[in-house]
Amino acid sequence: MTNPRKILEVDGRMIGGGQFALIAGPCTVESREQTLDIAETVAAGGATMLRGGAYKPRTSPYSFQGLGREGLAILAEAKALTGLPIVTELIDVRDADEVVEVADVIQIGARNMQNYPLLTEAGRSGRTVLLKRGLAASLQELLMAAEYVLKEGNEDVILCERGIRTHETAYRFTLDLLAVPALKEMTDLPVVVDPSHAPGRRDWVEPMSLAAAAAGADGIIVEVHNDPENAVCDGPQALRSEAFASYAERLRSIAEIAGDGSLEPVAVPAAVI
Amino acid sequence: MTNPRKILEVDGRMIGGGQFALIAGPCTVESREQTLDIAETVAAGGATMLRGGAYKPRTSPYSFQGLGREGLAILAEAKALTGLPIVTELIDVRDADEVVEVADVIQIGARNMQNYPLLTEAGRSGRTVLLKRGLAASLQELLMAAEYVLKEGNEDVILCERGIRTHETAYRFTLDLLAVPALKEMTDLPVVVDPSHAPGRRDWVEPMSLAAAAAGADGIIVEVHNDPENAVCDGPQALRSEAFASYAERLRSIAEIAGDGSLEPVAVPAAVI
Amino acid sequence: MTNPRKILEVDGRMIGGGQFALIAGPCTVESREQTLDIAETVAAGGATMLRGGAYKPRTSPYSFQGLGREGLAILAEAKALTGLPIVTELIDVRDADEVVEVADVIQIGARNMQNYPLLTEAGRSGRTVLLKRGLAASLQELLMAAEYVLKEGNEDVILCERGIRTHETAYRFTLDLLAVPALKEMTDLPVVVDPSHAPGRRDWVEPMSLAAAAAGADGIIVEVHNDPENAVCDGPQALRSEAFASYAERLRSIAEIAGDGSLEPVAVPAAVI
Amino acid sequence: MTNPRKILEVDGRMIGGGQFALIAGPCTVESREQTLDIAETVAAGGATMLRGGAYKPRTSPYSFQGLGREGLAILAEAKALTGLPIVTELIDVRDADEVVEVADVIQIGARNMQNYPLLTEAGRSGRTVLLKRGLAASLQELLMAAEYVLKEGNEDVILCERGIRTHETAYRFTLDLLAVPALKEMTDLPVVVDPSHAPGRRDWVEPMSLAAAAAGADGIIVEVHNDPENAVCDGPQALRSEAFASYAERLRSIAEIAGDGSLEPVAVPAAVI
Repeated sequence: MTNPRKILEVDGRMIGGGQFALIAGPCTVESREQTLDIAETVAAGGATMLRGGAYKPRTSPYSFQGLGREGLAILAEAKALTGLPIVTELIDVRDADEVVEVADVIQIGARNMQNYPLLTEAGRSGRTVLLKRGLAASLQELLMAAEYVLKEGNEDVILCERGIRTHETAYRFTLDLLAVPALKEMTDLPVVVDPSHAPGRRDWVEPMSLAAAAAGADGIIVEVHNDPENAVCDGPQALRSEAFASYAERLRSIAEIAGDGSLEPVAVPAAVI
Repeated sequence: MTNPRKILEVDGRMIGGGQFALIAGPCTVESREQTLDIAETVAAGGATMLRGGAYKPRTSPYSFQGLGREGLAILAEAKALTGLPIVTELIDVRDADEVVEVADVIQIGARNMQNYPLLTEAGRSGRTVLLKRGLAASLQELLMAAEYVLKEGNEDVILCERGIRTHETAYRFTLDLLAVPALKEMTDLPVVVDPSHAPGRRDWVEPMSLAAAAAGADGIIVEVHNDPENAVCDGPQALRSEAFASYAERLRSIAEIAGDGSLEPVAVPAAVI
Repeated sequence: MTNPRKILEVDGRMIGGGQFALIAGPCTVESREQTLDIAETVAAGGATMLRGGAYKPRTSPYSFQGLGREGLAILAEAKALTGLPIVTELIDVRDADEVVEVADVIQIGARNMQNYPLLTEAGRSGRTVLLKRGLAASLQELLMAAEYVLKEGNEDVILCERGIRTHETAYRFTLDLLAVPALKEMTDLPVVVDPSHAPGRRDWVEPMSLAAAAAGADGIIVEVHNDPENAVCDGPQALRSEAFASYAERLRSIAEIAGDGSLEPVAVPAAVI
Repeated sequence: MTNPRKILEVDGRMIGGGQFALIAGPCTVESREQTLDIAETVAAGGATMLRGGAYKPRTSPYSFQGLGREGLAILAEAKALTGLPIVTELIDVRDADEVVEVADVIQIGARNMQNYPLLTEAGRSGRTVLLKRGLAASLQELLMAAEYVLKEGNEDVILCERGIRTHETAYRFTLDLLAVPALKEMTDLPVVVDPSHAPGRRDWVEPMSLAAAAAGADGIIVEVHNDPENAVCDGPQALRSEAFASYAERLRSIAEIAGDGSLEPVAVPAAVI
């Protein structure tokens, strides 16, 4: 019923077609210690890629906007330490060169899903692109946005469901897991889920992660923090570092049952052990 | 984080607090043969209750409106045959007496979530009430609707998420699985999921069922048909009878991992074996 | 572009096809004095019908549920006093006979738009039916709900837009005025707007009323109160009695410009003058 | 109830605080003849500014993307001919310099409402900024987006409601006119409405325009075409040139009644007469 699935390789890690990716890390790069510490934890716990924002799109101009270049340098160090490929967001076309230097996967955020110059730059980057669905975007529009990347000759696109706007106010967004089987039918691109932003609360992130894996997602991109109470942003929705390994294990079990989703065997780098 | 969970007993079957209910059967009672055949199949496959509509709320007045009393009689026969408690919908207060005679669980449909006289009658019925969330209802409003049942002294209410209206047109409704952990925090009542109506398509029902179980649902209410191509209503979203047993098995595995959800051991009645 | 418009007569008052109806009155009948006082005010100010609820559908079972039969008797007295036809809500099929005795127009509320037994009773009542669009109902579904009335041989149906559920939380509902020209194309039935519930605030009711008239609505059904600070329900959204006449005048000016909408000449009964 | 209103001046034309702006013109600049012809028509008909896109954000990368610099040159010529200030969209920060040279008002489209680098560039441009509300944006988020412009020291921001995504599929978007009084309470910035995109159909544009004026909007930004059947984009929703003058007249009458909205007296330039 679903298409033959495309398997993407990101610096040795696979995603799609039965290879389940677990992308974990802090919402934003706050400091060297914070980032390296979390990176080691998630690497040891079975993450297959490291996420972390150096440039942050924020609703208010007065909120923390990210460490920028300094943040990118820290991410590069985290990669050297753990071996995990880096997933980080690009928000300004003028930052493309420096982001490309560090990123293995360029994230395009939900607010920028229809920022066409940005999609075009991402398409030209030679990097895998993780494209998040906009809050009011239809699946069809998500695919048309991906097309802006594909038309530049870049076929390495990962689609990401992260929650849509609805009438319900009990959570930040409504996680639309039907998007997973639907997108898998509409395209052969890997489909991952961000289970952190919709709940906005740590204790609802695991049920939504397991649900996403059960729905057939090719991976999860989740926020983890070693000190969420003092996190610069989105602390309440970050999984605690100490809970990550057992979370990853339950997630793996579900992904295996759900079928074409068996977690990629993780080669934990020496530095972590 | 979640409340101490209430466990309800429905004619010997348990639901809630780690007892996972699998409610299966046809959308509507079409005939004696169809209903008994499906009932035996789902009983053998591990269902814990039988669903089936004798009175059907239909968008168009020119659509099939259900077999009425004749349908109720068929459901009673199905129960006698399989031992499965009956879940069936009440749509008119004036039918309450006859429905109560057959139903172990009175279903209040999404369209009637705020039909207050109906909720009051259901509250007075002495039967367990399965209350579906309206298409635009907030969780808070669902709980206030449940309160109409509870205030009659009837504490046996099962809440059901079945999909909400959003902008997305790739499926009939958006299944809001965040409602599961959220409702479990807001109340001690069992929370089940209807994975059939939101997708509207058979092949997306299983991923959504597994996702619901992974999210911590206390049960599933799913449509099954022995001849979906010729079903009177909702054929395209009905699981095929022959696929039910393996579906139920995968569902059970997920529910077990998801934690407080282990499937109730099923005592298959002699007639089925 | 729009259909030839049907003109309905309600006890001598016209609505549709250029006859603009102004239906005004309290949310709920609270007392004899309150209702008669408001009735006289709106009659003097140019209302063409009187609204008022004797049976109230309330989100919480612990809220005031209406005066019931006593309320109906007060409405009958208000009609005798002012000559205004009565618009009042039916929420329980078992109350149909007594409501029909007093009501010139039976209102079916948004929560009951798909309460099919209720629609059928309204269809059989011989009274004009004012059918409010559900919070998540498509226009197509609104028309199918009207069809339940029409199929009983009752062609006197008024459609009412009253706001839908969206993501926006700055107001109670989003008033969807595009429904006005769209419904006028899809059907020949009169289309009115309830500008009170969506804003939920008095000061936004007038701009929305004028906007509805400008959009081509065949009428307005608005809440007015003589003491909103002490109203039993929805006080904050009720227009003040003393402001009604000038409000009605501005509304009339807009309806005239908007084209096929000229306010029906009002014959103020002697008792009011 | 509303704030003291800010009045902005755009090259001699006023908007806000009782000065109603009528911004009209083609969706996109297709050619010199088309643009100049439409510009003359709308100037003669009472428009106070000319709209037209040189850079077009399109859902599909394979759709016409605008004439770019050539389009800007045509807009400059249209301004010289008619005296109308130019409203045109900026979609790429790297185009800011050339757009600023021609634009009197820089439009930020709905898709880019949270494109923060773009908002910052618009803030630094020294031009008035017309900011459209995103399809799923709350009013609060629209104001936070405006804050990105304001924090650069640019206080000349016009807010624009253009329709939000809802469940209704009878039109492209749901025009949320409650945003008008609500935004006027939340801020002193002028609030205009785009009545073209939500209906997506010419015959529903006028009722929505009148409704917007009746709701208290400080202006309208509307699409007009001299040959909509052959328009490159959005032809079906463009008003016909020949209908514009009478449309503008009805709009003006409504705006006058609606209160603080009287159309700015239009000084038609010699070239048009």
